[in-house]
Amino acid sequence: MVSIREAIAADWPAVWAILEPVFHAGETYVVSPDITENQAHSYWMEIPLATFVALDDDGTVLGTYYLKPNQAGGGAHVCNCGFAVGERARGRGVASQMCEHSQSEAVKRGFSAMQFNFDVSTNETAVRLWKRCGFEVVGTLPSAFLHPRLGYVDAHVMFKRLDAQQALPADAPKVS
Amino acid sequence: MVSIREAIAADWPAVWAILEPVFHAGETYVVSPDITENQAHSYWMEIPLATFVALDDDGTVLGTYYLKPNQAGGGAHVCNCGFAVGERARGRGVASQMCEHSQSEAVKRGFSAMQFNFDVSTNETAVRLWKRCGFEVVGTLPSAFLHPRLGYVDAHVMFKRLDAQQALPADAPKVS
Repeated sequence: MVSIREAIAADWPAVWAILEPVFHAGETYVVSPDITENQAHSYWMEIPLATFVALDDDGTVLGTYYLKPNQAGGGAHVCNCGFAVGERARGRGVASQMCEHSQSEAVKRGFSAMQFNFDVSTNETAVRLWKRCGFEVVGTLPSAFLHPRLGYVDAHVMFKRLDAQQALPADAPKVS
Repeated sequence: MVSIREAIAADWPAVWAILEPVFHAGETYVVSPDITENQAHSYWMEIPLATFVALDDDGTVLGTYYLKPNQAGGGAHVCNCGFAVGERARGRGVASQMCEHSQSEAVKRGFSAMQFNFDVSTNETAVRLWKRCGFEVVGTLPSAFLHPRLGYVDAHVMFKRLDAQQALPADAPKVS
């Protein structure tokens, strides 16, 4: 069984052990591969509104995600999340469980949509997973990612409306 | 004649006089309408790689733009700009001249594409202008902007490759 709860300060070493190889590989996140532990802590634990960890029965941290508004002002009803799963925990549905969890946390906090700004197209497992979770590719950024092995590849912008009834109150006219 | 140069510290009051009504109106930028002058200074003058002003013959600041990488790591070859023109200077082609200028500054600094992350769809003058400058709508974010008068409206992601020859060196394979 996987359980998910808000991260506490003491989780950081385990969270960093998951993030470090992901960031340093530079194949999926638009983060400098040379990011320091302090910068990563700020990016994952300080700037976001909330950070979560997914735990095994014995308390091992299997994965982590953050939740934050994607934009300020008139864009603040759309949130953004980032997800990472430890290498040894992959293939167990942890990312999918965190994605479901993030959507209900987002709705609880009043967000009405979730946006991923930069899904590297060659990260096919992730793109397929987000589609299964109900996200749509709403845009593709041509050659926007320089992959360390594959060269210039496209990146997708993915989007999902959450809780559609609440998203558009009757008194807020929709103009497209 | 309009001339464009890098902003200096002494330009800030004139730049803020242009930005303040734009941000406070909350109709085009995803910035809190309550942004303070200090926060705006950081957003426009400190975080970006460079900030420019467009000047009239007599030195009056007509408009301003910033230039920065849109993402870090593998996304750092794509830049992002934000533009604002003073109310009294609109309709004189200042935005269009700044947009051309920003593209050549971007190429000089080694960027190979420019991305606008959030063009509010109801800001039709801007969307039309960016299209005339060669930008394409590569994605549309449904109801992603809560307009203070119009309610929920779409926002566009716009993109332009710059200097295509340099953008894709022969030794960088393109995978889409």
